[in-house]
Amino acid sequence: MTLHIGVDVGGTKVLAGEVDADGTVRRTARRSTPGRRVDAALVEQALTEAVAEVADGRRVDGVGLAAAGFVDAAGERVMFAPHLPWQGEDVRARLEDRWGARVALDNDANCAALAEATLGAGRGVPDFLLVTMGTGIGGAVVLDGRVRRGRNGMAGEFGHAQVVPDGRSCECGGAGCWEQYASGNALVRHARARVGLEPTLLEALCDGDPSALTGPMVTAAAEQGDPVALEAFASVGDWLGVGVANLVAALDPDLVVIGGGVSAAADLLLEPARRALGRSLVGAAHRAVPAIVPARFGPHAGIVGGALLVRGATA
Amino acid sequence: MTLHIGVDVGGTKVLAGEVDADGTVRRTARRSTPGRRVDAALVEQALTEAVAEVADGRRVDGVGLAAAGFVDAAGERVMFAPHLPWQGEDVRARLEDRWGARVALDNDANCAALAEATLGAGRGVPDFLLVTMGTGIGGAVVLDGRVRRGRNGMAGEFGHAQVVPDGRSCECGGAGCWEQYASGNALVRHARARVGLEPTLLEALCDGDPSALTGPMVTAAAEQGDPVALEAFASVGDWLGVGVANLVAALDPDLVVIGGGVSAAADLLLEPARRALGRSLVGAAHRAVPAIVPARFGPHAGIVGGALLVRGATA
Repeated sequence: MTLHIGVDVGGTKVLAGEVDADGTVRRTARRSTPGRRVDAALVEQALTEAVAEVADGRRVDGVGLAAAGFVDAAGERVMFAPHLPWQGEDVRARLEDRWGARVALDNDANCAALAEATLGAGRGVPDFLLVTMGTGIGGAVVLDGRVRRGRNGMAGEFGHAQVVPDGRSCECGGAGCWEQYASGNALVRHARARVGLEPTLLEALCDGDPSALTGPMVTAAAEQGDPVALEAFASVGDWLGVGVANLVAALDPDLVVIGGGVSAAADLLLEPARRALGRSLVGAAHRAVPAIVPARFGPHAGIVGGALLVRGATA
Repeated sequence: MTLHIGVDVGGTKVLAGEVDADGTVRRTARRSTPGRRVDAALVEQALTEAVAEVADGRRVDGVGLAAAGFVDAAGERVMFAPHLPWQGEDVRARLEDRWGARVALDNDANCAALAEATLGAGRGVPDFLLVTMGTGIGGAVVLDGRVRRGRNGMAGEFGHAQVVPDGRSCECGGAGCWEQYASGNALVRHARARVGLEPTLLEALCDGDPSALTGPMVTAAAEQGDPVALEAFASVGDWLGVGVANLVAALDPDLVVIGGGVSAAADLLLEPARRALGRSLVGAAHRAVPAIVPARFGPHAGIVGGALLVRGATA
């Protein structure tokens, strides 16, 4: 038995998991991410603890890191990460030395795409786009079954396409980025703005404090038919479909896979997105319009993809 | 000596040309395109005449058609073309039968990309985007030196990405499409709106009739330093760069090549585009930002690419 561990290195948490070759996740371990303005050693300590907890004394064959940041095309360095202290550092080799196990590194959305291409919603589909909706929007481009990384390893940064001139300002320094309109943050912002103005289940869910609203609360209210929550999903889903139409016009893929935390809401999000795609996509009447489907691997996409990466999957 | 002819089948004209293997264009012949609401036989007659004029009695080995429309992934049919009467018709085989010569068919921007990838600005560059600016915007995606055609053969329809919510209405039926802000039409529209309001060389060039303004007039005035014409290029170039940034965020290519009629203005257009790309591209400080360069093949891109296509180039 070999032991391969995938680690999702996100802005708020580190999640490590033992993953079988078929994608089954066995034991997991979790640590908080120490933040961006700390010494990189603290993040690496958190990773080391999470990996050790999963290994539980066993010899580790490989660790695949799925990092929320820009990873260079060689898979060696995290060039830039908005929520991590790594800036151009040679993370892969350093952790390989430290752990005495093979380490592979890629962007979290690329790892998720590898998981979906190999074992998930994109299995057997030559060309697909993965859009991950969480706090913001990440993404990946899979063509001929391979994740395209681009010159800098930065392909798939869909969330920072400008869709509104002089629109909402974005953490990236730009304005009007797609993720300001179609993300978990956008969903919560939309709902928050209406609490107190209209009757809504959200008022009780957040104890009357709109700043306490979360995405899961909006999902729960929408599932009970709450009109304010449904309207928030309709807006975010519509924006999702408009942005997907822009990407489909450029790449004409076979399929669009939606992952990330918000995608747990499934059809609440995907139905308005499908309608917007059908309406916005150029030449829709003269082409096969790709299906929009949920990802198979939800919160575990990063660890499954990271583990596949270090197992040497070639997708 | 073999004879290969490329034919650019555009909305206003048909241009046929004899093209050597090295991309040299020898003789050309031109016909007007009869329009969209005519019998397809009239367009095919115009093509036949142009090809015969170029052949001038010689045996033709192959004809490559670069069509301004959506061509199916198999390269057999023009599925839909806004300015041509072909709608789902099996143009390739029909003309092959009629002419007794091998015929190949692709979208005009894909043909231009083949020409640039094989012999032009993209030669030796694995991954590049071609954006063609004429009346509207066309485009092509070249990855690993190959033109990506997509599931329906419709990849590269960059011009119909929505960049302004509820923006200017577009011939495609949508609104706020990129080509409404960054194209030859947008350039002329921008300049027209100012003639009569400010002193400008354009007033004399169009004999005081803004509706008579053309793209080449705006280029000529800008080259003489006319502020209204320069402002039109600044606006269109800025929008070009913003849209290019969206595509670069998604695909992270090595290079961006700008072709089409408007690109004859070169730095008048490309300098503001480069500034906008540097400003708008996510993570620009942490990556290699691709150069934006003019295409090598200007008005002959379609015929050179068409001829290469029928010569069996594999790019």
